[in-house]
Amino acid sequence: MAWDVDFDSDLHLLHPSDGFEQYGAMSNFRFDEVGVERIVAQLERLGLKQTFFVCGWCLEQYPQVGELLAAGGHEVAHHGYMHERANTQSAAGEHQWLMRGIECIKRTVGVAPRGWRAPSHGFSKQSADLLARAGFLYDSSLSDDEDPYEIQTESGALLELPMDITMSDWPHFAHVPEFGYLMPPKAASDGMRFFEEEFEAAYETGGFLTTVWHPHVSGRRSRVRAWSGFLERLLDRGDVWLTTMESVARHCRSAADSGAWTPRRRTLPYYKETPAAVAEFSKTWRDPARAVRFLE
Amino acid sequence: MAWDVDFDSDLHLLHPSDGFEQYGAMSNFRFDEVGVERIVAQLERLGLKQTFFVCGWCLEQYPQVGELLAAGGHEVAHHGYMHERANTQSAAGEHQWLMRGIECIKRTVGVAPRGWRAPSHGFSKQSADLLARAGFLYDSSLSDDEDPYEIQTESGALLELPMDITMSDWPHFAHVPEFGYLMPPKAASDGMRFFEEEFEAAYETGGFLTTVWHPHVSGRRSRVRAWSGFLERLLDRGDVWLTTMESVARHCRSAADSGAWTPRRRTLPYYKETPAAVAEFSKTWRDPARAVRFLE
Amino acid sequence: MAWDVDFDSDLHLLHPSDGFEQYGAMSNFRFDEVGVERIVAQLERLGLKQTFFVCGWCLEQYPQVGELLAAGGHEVAHHGYMHERANTQSAAGEHQWLMRGIECIKRTVGVAPRGWRAPSHGFSKQSADLLARAGFLYDSSLSDDEDPYEIQTESGALLELPMDITMSDWPHFAHVPEFGYLMPPKAASDGMRFFEEEFEAAYETGGFLTTVWHPHVSGRRSRVRAWSGFLERLLDRGDVWLTTMESVARHCRSAADSGAWTPRRRTLPYYKETPAAVAEFSKTWRDPARAVRFLE
Amino acid sequence: MAWDVDFDSDLHLLHPSDGFEQYGAMSNFRFDEVGVERIVAQLERLGLKQTFFVCGWCLEQYPQVGELLAAGGHEVAHHGYMHERANTQSAAGEHQWLMRGIECIKRTVGVAPRGWRAPSHGFSKQSADLLARAGFLYDSSLSDDEDPYEIQTESGALLELPMDITMSDWPHFAHVPEFGYLMPPKAASDGMRFFEEEFEAAYETGGFLTTVWHPHVSGRRSRVRAWSGFLERLLDRGDVWLTTMESVARHCRSAADSGAWTPRRRTLPYYKETPAAVAEFSKTWRDPARAVRFLE
Repeated sequence: MAWDVDFDSDLHLLHPSDGFEQYGAMSNFRFDEVGVERIVAQLERLGLKQTFFVCGWCLEQYPQVGELLAAGGHEVAHHGYMHERANTQSAAGEHQWLMRGIECIKRTVGVAPRGWRAPSHGFSKQSADLLARAGFLYDSSLSDDEDPYEIQTESGALLELPMDITMSDWPHFAHVPEFGYLMPPKAASDGMRFFEEEFEAAYETGGFLTTVWHPHVSGRRSRVRAWSGFLERLLDRGDVWLTTMESVARHCRSAADSGAWTPRRRTLPYYKETPAAVAEFSKTWRDPARAVRFLE
Repeated sequence: MAWDVDFDSDLHLLHPSDGFEQYGAMSNFRFDEVGVERIVAQLERLGLKQTFFVCGWCLEQYPQVGELLAAGGHEVAHHGYMHERANTQSAAGEHQWLMRGIECIKRTVGVAPRGWRAPSHGFSKQSADLLARAGFLYDSSLSDDEDPYEIQTESGALLELPMDITMSDWPHFAHVPEFGYLMPPKAASDGMRFFEEEFEAAYETGGFLTTVWHPHVSGRRSRVRAWSGFLERLLDRGDVWLTTMESVARHCRSAADSGAWTPRRRTLPYYKETPAAVAEFSKTWRDPARAVRFLE
Repeated sequence: MAWDVDFDSDLHLLHPSDGFEQYGAMSNFRFDEVGVERIVAQLERLGLKQTFFVCGWCLEQYPQVGELLAAGGHEVAHHGYMHERANTQSAAGEHQWLMRGIECIKRTVGVAPRGWRAPSHGFSKQSADLLARAGFLYDSSLSDDEDPYEIQTESGALLELPMDITMSDWPHFAHVPEFGYLMPPKAASDGMRFFEEEFEAAYETGGFLTTVWHPHVSGRRSRVRAWSGFLERLLDRGDVWLTTMESVARHCRSAADSGAWTPRRRTLPYYKETPAAVAEFSKTWRDPARAVRFLE
Repeated sequence: MAWDVDFDSDLHLLHPSDGFEQYGAMSNFRFDEVGVERIVAQLERLGLKQTFFVCGWCLEQYPQVGELLAAGGHEVAHHGYMHERANTQSAAGEHQWLMRGIECIKRTVGVAPRGWRAPSHGFSKQSADLLARAGFLYDSSLSDDEDPYEIQTESGALLELPMDITMSDWPHFAHVPEFGYLMPPKAASDGMRFFEEEFEAAYETGGFLTTVWHPHVSGRRSRVRAWSGFLERLLDRGDVWLTTMESVARHCRSAADSGAWTPRRRTLPYYKETPAAVAEFSKTWRDPARAVRFLE
């Protein structure tokens, strides 16, 4: 299990003029405070260390959260500064906020983060290169595989520990009108069944699986109750490795370096620009203004 | 259980020129008339008093509803005048409509309301202060906790009895095209399972839980049947306190004043303006016009 | 059970320039042809007569459908001419298309329709009056009750046989990108459970229930299989009256006229214009341009 | 079962300026690479040949996918060049890309495709004619029937093997914010139940059924596990024909030619222009600017 701790960061970016007064969404997101307390307490009870991808701004704004995570011995990894999507930033901007997020984490837990997860899946064409240059061990933002693989960049290699958007708790439990996010929340056990079935499939193949959970969603009582019970059952199996992303990455790195494991390798960026064929389409659209409609 | 009684108030605000002729949504919302009758009858059968957050305009437009609630001994609490979002109002406007809603309730039940729930989660930066000044005992609009806590304002303290948007019946059962609210309605038992699981989690921790139900949704036959059965089972347990929000608030107030309970305390407003870091982002967006897109 | 037969009428109205070439939605809607055949065959097997609200244009464009319904002895009721929303029409326009739809039905089944259901819930402020003047016995477009009631108009009385949008099969089974209607289709048995629970609640109170089903949705094999099985179980009960809307309306009319039943009475239109209080809000919005946002 | 292999083609068309850097959606779609490997391996284990509708550009960009499909003996059918909607193309453009897609498939598997499925349901008024002229045996883009039928065009006949949008895995499992596609993903077993019930209904009538599955959705571990189990159960029945679309089409063609089967026949295009009645409505809208609203 991995957690994304965002608080109200994204709300301010999305609604720069009045997000600070949208108390429906904001008080919902600020549940992260209570949520992190509960999650840390549960993990301590279960004897587990986990990974929390935390926005730098959240560590500044809500310092008690970083202290709790540090005291619990959990991994605090990088999740942007203010939940900015890297691919909407200039290259310099992406670099600037990456560095600033690293500083926030260093101040909180004493060491630089080893892993990054792009806020809102906004991995950019230079993200992998920036991460390799900054000494990151792993990324967990991409979905083109289910098992770990190696990213090749001009500045060196990174491990990818893939995530999938459906492993987020948002599509199962969240309902946030201020984000245009209108979804039918599932009962805790119904939503948990999704994650359990994903786990069973990973378990059968001895594979890797990570979550994209949020304290303001899965830190609520009913869901804490659901996933705690599930984790207890996994601990009883005895052959499931419940650990931090960093531990998985170190294990993979070492297995790859020793030759015990040959990771699939993918070179990033996928593209440096729009594929050439797309330009040809500009000549054949019946009505260019309506060409790109998906929904009408 | 707490109910929000809105009738067609919001429809007129959202569609000021032609909402009065959108009979699909309007006749749906006007089901509140039949719904309140049924709910009051069921609650009488079960021997329960509950809280109804009612818009002031609804008490003027549909006086029989206020009479039914008063006759049944239920709490009539404040839910705006016409379901206006306080955070879209000027400070003077918010105050004006708050006062007018208080008058409507006084006329209906003889006493001023003790509690408020912000329509459409539109709690503003001055809402808490206004409520404290107007002598309210509690608010039930925020979601940053699951248990009651104390709000500190410049004008004194308020109790917060937190709600969560997923405890509304809308995301489970409503389908309102005129509001752009397209959702797959759950079967009554499937939707009820959501609320039952939320209750079980609250019950295990001895916690507080409130609903955001609407007579035009949960006053329909199939859902009355579902929640009545559930309430009967809770009454059989013997250790569940089913009461008005005001009773809970008085209990909390008294426990806090006697020192038997130390509530968590939060100071409002959270922010007086947009956090400073947001301005820095205006310098690093690659394309400011597209910077705030969440969905593309 | 009542059916709405729309074919591709609405698609042409919504996309007047290119709807005729949107083959995804169009071929989906034209499944009505196959759907009606199957439904009529199943109803014959079950020995049932039902009501089909059919757009006049569909009777002209797909005459075989009208012939099948007439031959099966089913009620063909009025559902607009081209699925136009009455409340987007001028008063003269609404009258013109109402008359034209009546003519289409007369030509098809030899008699004028006795009932009307507003396409897309677009009942207008003059609809009830127009229906009463045109000699209709009942309307089935409104949702402010679950049991039949009487509508009072300046031109006389009408029976209302209420429907509810969640009794449509669209929110349970349809997925129509061309209409911006993106919904997760339920398995046939899961969707059917919604309707079964609605029925059980109506059954317990001896109440009335109607559906808003469409041949292109509920005429598909998997759903025909689901509702046929359900109807067979209802027939086995022996105390469920499965009949046309017209039969229900005649029964209600007669019970009301004889004094055996005193219907609730509601006067239409609800409003002749926007409620006065709405105008007052124009003075208190903080930012009128953003005042009517429901979602941001 | 039939598969649509699109990779990131559509993303570039929908976001021509920056789709190449939307790594959330892109890495999700590029899972097609891993997905096809797994599907081909499973089908080999089960001893099945299936149909893959593949965009021409994907065969150029990801040649290993075409090689895997060819090596496995699967049918590679036509799915546009870059997932362009034919009905947004000029007639010449549609023809140009149809030819280019044929060339891509010829280069990959040595023979021209015999079947076509319109990307995004964008079948145009000339699609059927173009397919007949190009020697296609069948189309699988339309939804006006569940059983195969014959399309008549000015250039000859085609078989239609109908599909339905709800037989796609997207509405059950996908969640793609970049496409405005926000849906609650079902647990693998819940989504599979939809397809199983559709199958049972087809099985009971001895009918035809095809899927619209995508390797980036149904090639994920949990879903491979679900459908593999289902296919094994079908193989155990012994009377289910699991084969390619081409085999079904050849079987139908032969049965029709021999007179053993008389297919329903439909002439395409349905319309050459917007139905005349639509123009009449321009005279009766109350407010033409708002006439075509479906949602408000």
